[in-house]
Amino acid sequence: MIFKAKLFNIDAGKPVIILHEEDAKRYELFASDRIIIKHGKKQAVAFVDTTDNMVKPGEMGLFGDVYKKAKFEANEKVEVFYLRKPQSLQSIRRKLDSHELLPEEIDEIVKDIMNGNLSEPELAVFISAVYTRGFNINESVALTKSIVNSGETIDLGKGKKIVDKHSIGGVTGRTTMVVTPILAACGAYIPKTSSRAITSAGGTADAMEVICDVNFSAQEIKDIVLETKGCVVWGGGAYLAPADDKLIKIRHPFSLDPRGMLLASIMAKKKSVGAEYVVIDLPVGRGSKIKDNNEAKELAHDFKNISEKLGIKTSVVLTDGTDPIGWGVGPSLETIDVIKVLQGDGPRDLLDKSCTLSGILLEMCGLAKPGCGYKASIDCINSGKAFKKFEEIVHAQGGAKKLKIDDLPVGKHKVPIYCPMDGRVDYVSNRRIAAVARAAGAPKMQGSGVVLRCENGDKVKKGQILYEIFSDSETQLSYALKMDKKLQPIELKKVLLETI
Amino acid sequence: MIFKAKLFNIDAGKPVIILHEEDAKRYELFASDRIIIKHGKKQAVAFVDTTDNMVKPGEMGLFGDVYKKAKFEANEKVEVFYLRKPQSLQSIRRKLDSHELLPEEIDEIVKDIMNGNLSEPELAVFISAVYTRGFNINESVALTKSIVNSGETIDLGKGKKIVDKHSIGGVTGRTTMVVTPILAACGAYIPKTSSRAITSAGGTADAMEVICDVNFSAQEIKDIVLETKGCVVWGGGAYLAPADDKLIKIRHPFSLDPRGMLLASIMAKKKSVGAEYVVIDLPVGRGSKIKDNNEAKELAHDFKNISEKLGIKTSVVLTDGTDPIGWGVGPSLETIDVIKVLQGDGPRDLLDKSCTLSGILLEMCGLAKPGCGYKASIDCINSGKAFKKFEEIVHAQGGAKKLKIDDLPVGKHKVPIYCPMDGRVDYVSNRRIAAVARAAGAPKMQGSGVVLRCENGDKVKKGQILYEIFSDSETQLSYALKMDKKLQPIELKKVLLETI
Repeated sequence: MIFKAKLFNIDAGKPVIILHEEDAKRYELFASDRIIIKHGKKQAVAFVDTTDNMVKPGEMGLFGDVYKKAKFEANEKVEVFYLRKPQSLQSIRRKLDSHELLPEEIDEIVKDIMNGNLSEPELAVFISAVYTRGFNINESVALTKSIVNSGETIDLGKGKKIVDKHSIGGVTGRTTMVVTPILAACGAYIPKTSSRAITSAGGTADAMEVICDVNFSAQEIKDIVLETKGCVVWGGGAYLAPADDKLIKIRHPFSLDPRGMLLASIMAKKKSVGAEYVVIDLPVGRGSKIKDNNEAKELAHDFKNISEKLGIKTSVVLTDGTDPIGWGVGPSLETIDVIKVLQGDGPRDLLDKSCTLSGILLEMCGLAKPGCGYKASIDCINSGKAFKKFEEIVHAQGGAKKLKIDDLPVGKHKVPIYCPMDGRVDYVSNRRIAAVARAAGAPKMQGSGVVLRCENGDKVKKGQILYEIFSDSETQLSYALKMDKKLQPIELKKVLLETI
Repeated sequence: MIFKAKLFNIDAGKPVIILHEEDAKRYELFASDRIIIKHGKKQAVAFVDTTDNMVKPGEMGLFGDVYKKAKFEANEKVEVFYLRKPQSLQSIRRKLDSHELLPEEIDEIVKDIMNGNLSEPELAVFISAVYTRGFNINESVALTKSIVNSGETIDLGKGKKIVDKHSIGGVTGRTTMVVTPILAACGAYIPKTSSRAITSAGGTADAMEVICDVNFSAQEIKDIVLETKGCVVWGGGAYLAPADDKLIKIRHPFSLDPRGMLLASIMAKKKSVGAEYVVIDLPVGRGSKIKDNNEAKELAHDFKNISEKLGIKTSVVLTDGTDPIGWGVGPSLETIDVIKVLQGDGPRDLLDKSCTLSGILLEMCGLAKPGCGYKASIDCINSGKAFKKFEEIVHAQGGAKKLKIDDLPVGKHKVPIYCPMDGRVDYVSNRRIAAVARAAGAPKMQGSGVVLRCENGDKVKKGQILYEIFSDSETQLSYALKMDKKLQPIELKKVLLETI
């Protein structure tokens, strides 16, 4: 097979050549097939793609990724050879056929993912295989280790009490921003990486970004934590466990979260920052990712098992995930809640949940006596130490030395949502409140979002404010109002459910 | 989300826009996400792709497929909106979770495949789901119908006996080219579509192409068959059951042949040409795709079931797939075998298998009495009618009026492979012989390939010719010789198997 080279001065992000569909059919080459192309001593490995108009039959289109490195030139005669498929494909096939994968097979797959040797459809088959056939604990441990090895790690050194926390799924309030300064103020090290919003109105990284930078390299994170004992940074910026990002990218369209991968994904992030003590928060109930207690207990059991094999001490807590935590929804409005809590005047539920989580970690690593962690956390806040530590961390991440709530952005337009009749609040939907906040402009417009003025169980009167919408844009505000009408995020108790 | 448009005058084959990785992360957009892009009244639907160098943060790269239709211009401010995912993704997800899909769900998936609404990774998940969870007969029937509806069909009209055959996998000899003229000469209609080589040294379409055209539209195929009652054309050229080609493209890297899809794939091709009577040939044994009789019987049972629901009468025959059929391996060398058989002087096994298959079809459609189909086929050859019909078909497909073996190309270089010792032939490997023939240049060089001079069970003497390699290229010939040394395609019976 010999083709005339046609160069496209564009990088495709992976080594791709394009052939006319007729040629591809003729030589039985398929999109994503691997080939070697040669001219004289020049050669390159590439994936095949096909077209019906970019090149003519007999021509081969070479993108920048291919021709620049190997120095192919226009109109050169390029010969094509089939290339053996990577060994990983056989391992993936074995998983499809229900076999247990060996650690070295999983490592080979992760390496091929990082080197771009597996195409996206091939990765999709891998994830489907793990979803339908499952990963056992050994496989999850192997995947965790391989993901950790795929990128940078943070080594804070020996003899430190390194802790971490993780909350799974849904809107869970900004406990991380309260837990972190408490732990650091009490003497633990907490190199906390967080995510940005996916389906919510803001992730912890979005909220933290209102008051300081969150985008740091692994080395910078290490420096910050050695200085202040804590940080709250964006996990996507530090090349920690990068193979996980590639796996998430493929899982995303189907929201496929095979348990064995979910476990590895979370534990790899903890392992890559050197965590020794971890608390995992599993919110359970209506509107949260985990629907029932049994599912949560199975997952908790798996977390304990895998942690043990990784040399990490882990506690798993099942929490009530039905109601939103805190008042604000949206980056700045959530950060205001956090500051209020740290100043002793914030939403009670956020204080309560945060101190529960930090209390468990304090007890686990021996910084509080058994049974005294919660109180130690409350004391840490009441003494002002937690807020002082928070200011230190924010300043180390490039923020102001002193934090004032009035400096934080709040959407300049505000609309209250009134209660339509007397009654009792029966349900506040995390998901629907987040949708209204997103419509108002969160997380992009930092001051936009929602502030709740009632909670589940409250007796409410007609005309009372249920919640307020804030936005910097009138257009987005009217969009949010439409969303409120459609979704009705706050439900009142009804006697008559339906008339048929 | 607003971006500055940067235009790339290249068609990507699907509507793709590219964002810088930082922007994609910031807005939680993933490769293959669907979005709507708008500027004023102009808008387009597109898939997201990401780059770290083709566009800068804040810019959006638009390929020709996107900007030309909607008339976006360079530097325009383009706004992005998330788009709801196609309903098919939910159906695919349901299949992953082991649910039976409804006919309308399968039809929606096939329509989305044809419209380019599903990305390749999404299709890969679909195929994995069918592989691991299976399709029952109802689902296979639904898939067959949807695949048929995805493209052209051939309607030869009422009151004709329309027949078809299919052989599954491996080198099976060119029975199709013998069966077709027999059926047509006896009064049946046989609009036969065939494939090109995939792993073999030549498909039926490659062999036929030595003597005439094989690339015709559905209308042209219909005209040829109405004139001569038969044809042997390439299936890929006629837009028959095109959804199947797209499914095969994704299945290819893993050689994933979920049974429910294999059934639908084959039956859709039969249904799309209007076949009423079909014989399916399942070669069984060492070296063939189906390893044991039980597997073959299950598959046969499924073929019968699905055919009944499609209104097709189907016979399934299990044949011995261990040995190659015929002498020649390579397009022209195989066609020479076919002509010799039709002239009464060809390889006995090819004659025998062809007349068995054609005999069954003749009996099924009432053109031969029960038990007399094989003899009717032999008689048709001996009377010269089959060869005359073959010439008619070849001529209708643009070939010569009269066929002479001497007109067919045969590689100008020839090397015999000698028997290394006295013994008995124990195994002739279809797969390894095909590899030698491919190395010699087949199917691209039509006259290149292999001619077998012995068969399984033959007593052979040292120095006797086992087979000959033909090639038009000395380079390829020496490559084929190396392949022979490495693979040793013909095995002699051994007493001593191994010394340890």
